[in-house]
Amino acid sequence: MFETISYRDSKVIMIDQRKLPNQVIYNQYTTHLQVAEAIKEMVIRGAPAIGCATALGIALGARQIKADDYDDFKRQLDKVCDELNVRPTAVNLRWAIEAIQSHVAHNKDKSIAELKESIEALAIKMLNDDIETNKAMGMHGAELLPSPGCVLTHCNAGALATAGYGTALGVIYAAREMGKDIKVLADETRPFLQGARLTAWELMENGVDVTVICDNMAGWMMKQGKVDAVIVGADRIAANGDVANKIGTMSLAILAKNFGIPFYVVAPLSTIDTKTASGADIPIEQRTTFEVSHINGKLIVPEGAKLLNPAFDVTPNSLVTAIVTEKGVLNPPYSETIPGAFETD
Amino acid sequence: MFETISYRDSKVIMIDQRKLPNQVIYNQYTTHLQVAEAIKEMVIRGAPAIGCATALGIALGARQIKADDYDDFKRQLDKVCDELNVRPTAVNLRWAIEAIQSHVAHNKDKSIAELKESIEALAIKMLNDDIETNKAMGMHGAELLPSPGCVLTHCNAGALATAGYGTALGVIYAAREMGKDIKVLADETRPFLQGARLTAWELMENGVDVTVICDNMAGWMMKQGKVDAVIVGADRIAANGDVANKIGTMSLAILAKNFGIPFYVVAPLSTIDTKTASGADIPIEQRTTFEVSHINGKLIVPEGAKLLNPAFDVTPNSLVTAIVTEKGVLNPPYSETIPGAFETD
Repeated sequence: MFETISYRDSKVIMIDQRKLPNQVIYNQYTTHLQVAEAIKEMVIRGAPAIGCATALGIALGARQIKADDYDDFKRQLDKVCDELNVRPTAVNLRWAIEAIQSHVAHNKDKSIAELKESIEALAIKMLNDDIETNKAMGMHGAELLPSPGCVLTHCNAGALATAGYGTALGVIYAAREMGKDIKVLADETRPFLQGARLTAWELMENGVDVTVICDNMAGWMMKQGKVDAVIVGADRIAANGDVANKIGTMSLAILAKNFGIPFYVVAPLSTIDTKTASGADIPIEQRTTFEVSHINGKLIVPEGAKLLNPAFDVTPNSLVTAIVTEKGVLNPPYSETIPGAFETD
Repeated sequence: MFETISYRDSKVIMIDQRKLPNQVIYNQYTTHLQVAEAIKEMVIRGAPAIGCATALGIALGARQIKADDYDDFKRQLDKVCDELNVRPTAVNLRWAIEAIQSHVAHNKDKSIAELKESIEALAIKMLNDDIETNKAMGMHGAELLPSPGCVLTHCNAGALATAGYGTALGVIYAAREMGKDIKVLADETRPFLQGARLTAWELMENGVDVTVICDNMAGWMMKQGKVDAVIVGADRIAANGDVANKIGTMSLAILAKNFGIPFYVVAPLSTIDTKTASGADIPIEQRTTFEVSHINGKLIVPEGAKLLNPAFDVTPNSLVTAIVTEKGVLNPPYSETIPGAFETD
């Protein structure tokens, strides 16, 4: 089985998700700037995986710092963190930075060498914890699914989007482990085709029955009664339960509501940004239009055509049936249940 | 300016829409079987254009018939018509066949040579009439648009989908001729990318400000207030106003309703099939999944992935703000206004 991201011998190793499914290639990174570039160019993507890559990137950066005292180390570490802050929407990136900065602030008494080691240990712990978190979410979410059932998913919120197991797809894996009969419809997810390339590949590797459709076919599948639930991940969830996720998610939520189909968001608490009041405050990354205009390096529009590429959209909380976290299933009103989940943390 | 379809020296000439926008190539066809293959393989597409190609294909087929008497001619002509009946959803194909069969049935007294000539003349007239029909629809529809305004369209319902000028895009051309300031958002329209390839190319050729988006971005554009109207063509409209059109259209209509945006369908009366009671009776063509799995000949999913490719969906009449025809704008209830339009015909 593949490993999305790992850390060995002071190297960050990532499966190159731009090359999947045609080529299974693992890249090695030895500096935080290389990791930053890999996050930016979507070698790795998916909010939890970006969080893990950021933490490991900071560990690499910390190792290379030459500092005489704590303040000097702290200043240089903040620069490393800044240089890794390359994608604005997924809050897990910022969450990883803040977790490590907080750890450092609480360990001023340690030597520089000790700090470097403890940062590395923390980053590795975050990587391992993510898999456990996903398995816990999977168990909670799996209870929500009928058997037999067909789940529609968008983008890739699987093992490839996390340290392993996955968020939305983790629910499907857990349901199958429970003995439920679950099939999957995967939106291809233009422009980057995470569904066609990554979700299809990952589910097929795991023996899950998956059928790929174009994004614009999802509503028609719902209309024909072929979808029992929509399950997606999230890049950031605001304090009121508004959900930023891959472009197209909001439209799916509107369609699901129209057809009376439950719409579930599966995400760890690290994806919930209690400092962001509502979806209106979530920055939406506009990515290069090259991702829209070119597929496999070939131009699909007339030369000089204007294009747009908003990478995410925001689903209002009113369309979200439930948010599945490692602490359990949160139901509306989210402005009450989200703080509750953090209290028990 | 390009010509979508024309007839010269007993040859049907069509711009090869599979090659656009990278190559502008005109193919010549001398037999009805070649024309049938071109329709099936989507050298030409778009309900009105398919209707015209079918009529001209019958004219080619009729020319090659060797018959001694009317009954023999009629029998062979029916076979030609059958062999051209290669796509099930667009009713204009059947409409063209029925128009010519009716013409022949009303001219039993003519010689075989005269019948062949009159079929050819009728097919050419249908081609010319289509452009006039589109211009009339354009005028009616243009009145509905604000200025300045932004129209979202799906697939290609333009000059390339008709003998010329277009249905949905004809409304945009007419609005501009009226002096209205209209911009267009074009859904790329997977899997065949008619929006990215054809609508973008055609509008750019005509100097219209067009921006291409992925299909799953349309809802987000609506949410941000960037869409004043959705305008699409149709492949078949049932007697009750249900509309079969390119896959994804129904979802757009649901999204438009959700955001209070008018949803207009632009189609000639030849696209309204009064023999089909409702959308449930419209056959939906399932096309080869190769169109989904491959882009520019390259595989975008894992080898062996399961796929679906329903080419059309049905938008319920309740989501259709108005149907623009050459006889004027039809409003709900369509079960009353559609028969009215045919009465004045």
